[in-house]
Amino acid sequence: LKGVLPPGDSSGPVWTPLVVLELASDTAEEAVTWLLRRIRDTQHNGGADLLVEQLGLGVETQKKQNPNLFLVGASNQRLLAGAEDVGLFKEYSDGSMRGFTCASKHNFKDFNGDGDGFLSMAECQYIIKHELDTLRAKDETHVPGHSHAKLYPGKSIIRRLQSKGILIQMFPLHEKEELKRLSFSWFKKLKLSLQPLDDIRHYYGEGQALYFGFLEYFTFALVPMALIGVPYFLFDWEDYDKYVIFAAFNLIWSTVILELWKRCSASLAYRWGTLSRKKAFEEPRPGFHGVLGFNPVTGREEPTYPTAKRHLRVYLVSVPFVLLCLYLSLYVMMIYFQMEGWVLSIHDEEPTFWTGILLFIPSIIYAVVIEIMNLIYRYAAEFLTEWENHRLESSYQNHLVLKVLVFNFFNCFASLFYIAFVMQDMVLLRQSLATLLITSQILNQIMESFLPYWLQRRRNKKMIRKVQKRATLQDKELPLEEQVRLEADMSTYLGTFDDYLELFLLFGYVSLFSCVYPLAAVLVVLNNITEVYSDAFKMCHVFKRPFSEPAANIGVWQLAFEAMCVIAVVTNCSLIGMSPQVKAYFPESDTQLILWTVAIEHCLLAIKFILSFLIPDVPKQIQVKLARLEFESLEALKKKPSLRNGKKHFIRGRI
Amino acid sequence: LKGVLPPGDSSGPVWTPLVVLELASDTAEEAVTWLLRRIRDTQHNGGADLLVEQLGLGVETQKKQNPNLFLVGASNQRLLAGAEDVGLFKEYSDGSMRGFTCASKHNFKDFNGDGDGFLSMAECQYIIKHELDTLRAKDETHVPGHSHAKLYPGKSIIRRLQSKGILIQMFPLHEKEELKRLSFSWFKKLKLSLQPLDDIRHYYGEGQALYFGFLEYFTFALVPMALIGVPYFLFDWEDYDKYVIFAAFNLIWSTVILELWKRCSASLAYRWGTLSRKKAFEEPRPGFHGVLGFNPVTGREEPTYPTAKRHLRVYLVSVPFVLLCLYLSLYVMMIYFQMEGWVLSIHDEEPTFWTGILLFIPSIIYAVVIEIMNLIYRYAAEFLTEWENHRLESSYQNHLVLKVLVFNFFNCFASLFYIAFVMQDMVLLRQSLATLLITSQILNQIMESFLPYWLQRRRNKKMIRKVQKRATLQDKELPLEEQVRLEADMSTYLGTFDDYLELFLLFGYVSLFSCVYPLAAVLVVLNNITEVYSDAFKMCHVFKRPFSEPAANIGVWQLAFEAMCVIAVVTNCSLIGMSPQVKAYFPESDTQLILWTVAIEHCLLAIKFILSFLIPDVPKQIQVKLARLEFESLEALKKKPSLRNGKKHFIRGRI
Repeated sequence: LKGVLPPGDSSGPVWTPLVVLELASDTAEEAVTWLLRRIRDTQHNGGADLLVEQLGLGVETQKKQNPNLFLVGASNQRLLAGAEDVGLFKEYSDGSMRGFTCASKHNFKDFNGDGDGFLSMAECQYIIKHELDTLRAKDETHVPGHSHAKLYPGKSIIRRLQSKGILIQMFPLHEKEELKRLSFSWFKKLKLSLQPLDDIRHYYGEGQALYFGFLEYFTFALVPMALIGVPYFLFDWEDYDKYVIFAAFNLIWSTVILELWKRCSASLAYRWGTLSRKKAFEEPRPGFHGVLGFNPVTGREEPTYPTAKRHLRVYLVSVPFVLLCLYLSLYVMMIYFQMEGWVLSIHDEEPTFWTGILLFIPSIIYAVVIEIMNLIYRYAAEFLTEWENHRLESSYQNHLVLKVLVFNFFNCFASLFYIAFVMQDMVLLRQSLATLLITSQILNQIMESFLPYWLQRRRNKKMIRKVQKRATLQDKELPLEEQVRLEADMSTYLGTFDDYLELFLLFGYVSLFSCVYPLAAVLVVLNNITEVYSDAFKMCHVFKRPFSEPAANIGVWQLAFEAMCVIAVVTNCSLIGMSPQVKAYFPESDTQLILWTVAIEHCLLAIKFILSFLIPDVPKQIQVKLARLEFESLEALKKKPSLRNGKKHFIRGRI
Repeated sequence: LKGVLPPGDSSGPVWTPLVVLELASDTAEEAVTWLLRRIRDTQHNGGADLLVEQLGLGVETQKKQNPNLFLVGASNQRLLAGAEDVGLFKEYSDGSMRGFTCASKHNFKDFNGDGDGFLSMAECQYIIKHELDTLRAKDETHVPGHSHAKLYPGKSIIRRLQSKGILIQMFPLHEKEELKRLSFSWFKKLKLSLQPLDDIRHYYGEGQALYFGFLEYFTFALVPMALIGVPYFLFDWEDYDKYVIFAAFNLIWSTVILELWKRCSASLAYRWGTLSRKKAFEEPRPGFHGVLGFNPVTGREEPTYPTAKRHLRVYLVSVPFVLLCLYLSLYVMMIYFQMEGWVLSIHDEEPTFWTGILLFIPSIIYAVVIEIMNLIYRYAAEFLTEWENHRLESSYQNHLVLKVLVFNFFNCFASLFYIAFVMQDMVLLRQSLATLLITSQILNQIMESFLPYWLQRRRNKKMIRKVQKRATLQDKELPLEEQVRLEADMSTYLGTFDDYLELFLLFGYVSLFSCVYPLAAVLVVLNNITEVYSDAFKMCHVFKRPFSEPAANIGVWQLAFEAMCVIAVVTNCSLIGMSPQVKAYFPESDTQLILWTVAIEHCLLAIKFILSFLIPDVPKQIQVKLARLEFESLEALKKKPSLRNGKKHFIRGRI
């Protein structure tokens, strides 16, 4: 079953290539040979038992092109065994989701013949990635030809190659036909239907699909808020009685939608088989370093790094650094407000055309400075989180997300908080909120999809022109080799981080000051609708295909949204308490007003917590399905050793 | 291996009796025969395969005595198989905790020969209870001789007998020697050591041991508070600067101790094998009724009751009822305060000896009324929770606990809240707090242990006198039959509910108003020390032995204590904000003061949540052990089907 090149065609192997490995062009010849041998070797010999072929072998590569591109695939049998290895959940013949095993493969739905087409391409690619990641060194002390790339028994070879820069990238290939179909049903046709979440999951995996599911859910969830907000805007209701109702509705509503999303995401995750899937033991991330020791869980040799030392780094360096940055950002904001006041005073003294223009200068400078600060901070946060030396990719990501989240939240909302609670200028607050929201939306859409698309297009055209010069124009389809090189040059999709961050900030605009600017929800709904299209577009046409990542929920972002909800209760209550209309109810004393505001705020917070406690996170029917699976596995375990549990026999017979 | 009576002695079977079944004296003869046959029958025939013997068979029972007492036991082999059935975790030879299986029994620590003494008596009794509970009807339509006790295939026989009153009680027997040893090391010797938690767990099971562990932990955790509180009391520090520090310390401290308790309880639960033990599928509770249908999880026939209907009952009847009771309690409190004011005015007009006595009357009436209300409410709560028709005992308990908790909290603290925040009389608050705390402690100790002990003692004496009349005095040891009858007459231990409730209320006295009465912690520490002794005493000498219940944590009480902690932040902050000394800092405006108080309160709450988020609930080394177990089981699962995973072999060899 080894990959054999078809005699006439030099564009690729006969098996379906799934994943591309790109090694540095200066990789030693012996290292390449060794790596290929290890990948092809049987599992019994400690290999990965995969198929691998150099791209365009036999064809002379152009001078500038890297010859070290390798296509990786696997036999059907191997993929099924791998599916069992990674603990894939698939739909069973009775409609429940069960862990796939080769022994019981014929009991799974859609398993026909030798199981061709049973696994989606994304699943196959995920399996190959897992098998490559767990390809471990045997008795090699270093990568042949690269003595600085040390190895020790049990070390993941791919991780070492990555950390030493020998492996430049590893990415899964696009599937052109399916992509065309997906992009048509997703965003190319005009439609009034939901996104094809199952197809998205089929092509991109659960993590991506959950993001798009959340985006869609979030948009629909905001519609009631938007609808209620419109009359406030149209009829200019300045009546704070009504604002109180609007704000209270918003606060309860946002709690409810976040709780319901958990149920929604549990349903999706169950359908996609990630809800009860056990996480495989996570390998240390490529950048992790430390003294060689033994992992207490696996018993494997691997670098160890004391947790106490990491805690020290986090609490004594990272936390103070973040606080310092927040202080700096506060300082910059104060300068901005001073400049603004100064410019306003100049304009008020003798207003001319030039002072009119001058009025915009501080805002522009502030916006530019904030962007620059965000950029620098992002690099600093990445550097710091790297330096904290987290063992797992997931904990690295969590620390990075938290750092970036706090700073972005602060940068976005500090000026609004200042206007609201220090200057207490509601008109200015509404203006600033509207300006910030609209400009940030427009900028985001441009920066996020049109710019990368335009860059990508230019690059692609150059590439295709080059290809066309060389190849004859007889086949319209791009040959595999060019296709691979084209994809290798595409930008890498960096995960859903920035997409979630954007949604999070938008949610902040809607919820934090909702009682001041009820139109925010409408704007966010409109933005989200275009966001679906632009995100879908960039996933399909701008980026390399990402590896699918199994996800059962949106993780740390659920927490972030819930925290935002809690902050929103505090801000909205204080805004309403500060409004002149409400103050008019308590003419004799401010004290009464504040006490009432605080009491109501505490009640709302209590209601939020009770609500989130009362609404179960997993829908009843899925709880039953999970319980049923667990019950059956327990019963099976009991029955296994002998027939002594005859008692249970007649009961089981009734099921 | 059937239980055979020794020829000469009529006091009991040769096998160790573990559990006693008491059937009603008017049970039909054929029902008894049928039940014994079903219990003795092999598992293959759907029986429980246990040993069972009537108590005092062959001896003429006295007229008044119930002849239908049965002793249940089991062979060693049967108990080991049962241990696997219930999923018992025992210590493995490598020191980790693993699920016991008969196949791997020799790899467990302390397993010698045929495993005699491997299981503790409490474990054996738990296993027998489980086996009896899961003894199911086959094709019987009703209990023979009792046509109203309907049966259907799969129905638990014991549950039906209980719900129809045919089975009066089922309880495990005490083990006199071990009890003597335990009570000596626990409370009979004067000592400065910790409680023998492992021995308590060995004799009473994990639920009990966790309660005593929590009691001890809680006492030690309060010591720092008590130590800091003493100088405040001794030197009469009325300086609120210092009170602020004391209160802030208390609030942070109580968060920390609750978080650390989670880690502590996880360690204990791991050591006792309940942390990762899967909960067996829970049978419906005896009182549960509904239309016969199929359980969606097990597929067994059992009564079903729509969740929506239960929700309606809970939200439309129970919740309004509880609110009404709270309102009533509030109303009674207001009457009390009116009476108090009225009496005070009489005394102030012309103080005589009689008006001096009259001053105490309102408090006494109020205390009596509260006790009566508590009693009535408790019955009402039990009735309502029964009526809500919960399927599981655990959910019944949770709903009952919640109802009783809220009402007791309200009754205990409403008057204090009224004094603190409506009357704003700090001196009266301190007096009331001290009075309430001290009287409730004394009353509790009397009601809880001395009274039942005294009653028990009287009953025992009567019994023993009766026995001595009949039996010759030659053997000092009480014969088994009398022992069993003695234990059957002892009060039934109703679980840890009231004990936890008492601790919860004490925690409230310490934390809610700590900045007003710093001595509270000292009193509670003293109370807890005597509580350990009195609780231990009543466990050993007053009550029937309870069945051990596997518990991994203190369940809903953890939540209740944490909620109390949050309320404490609010009350303490407001108390400090209201104090004249703090008010003196803000002479110009109350508004500033309140805003500061609220800000500090929010900060404290935020710190609490961040702390509880940062402190991991399970200690690192136990996380590692659990992860290791999971990793090994995953690896084993992968290796099972064939040798194709040769890749992993050389790695496993390194462990």
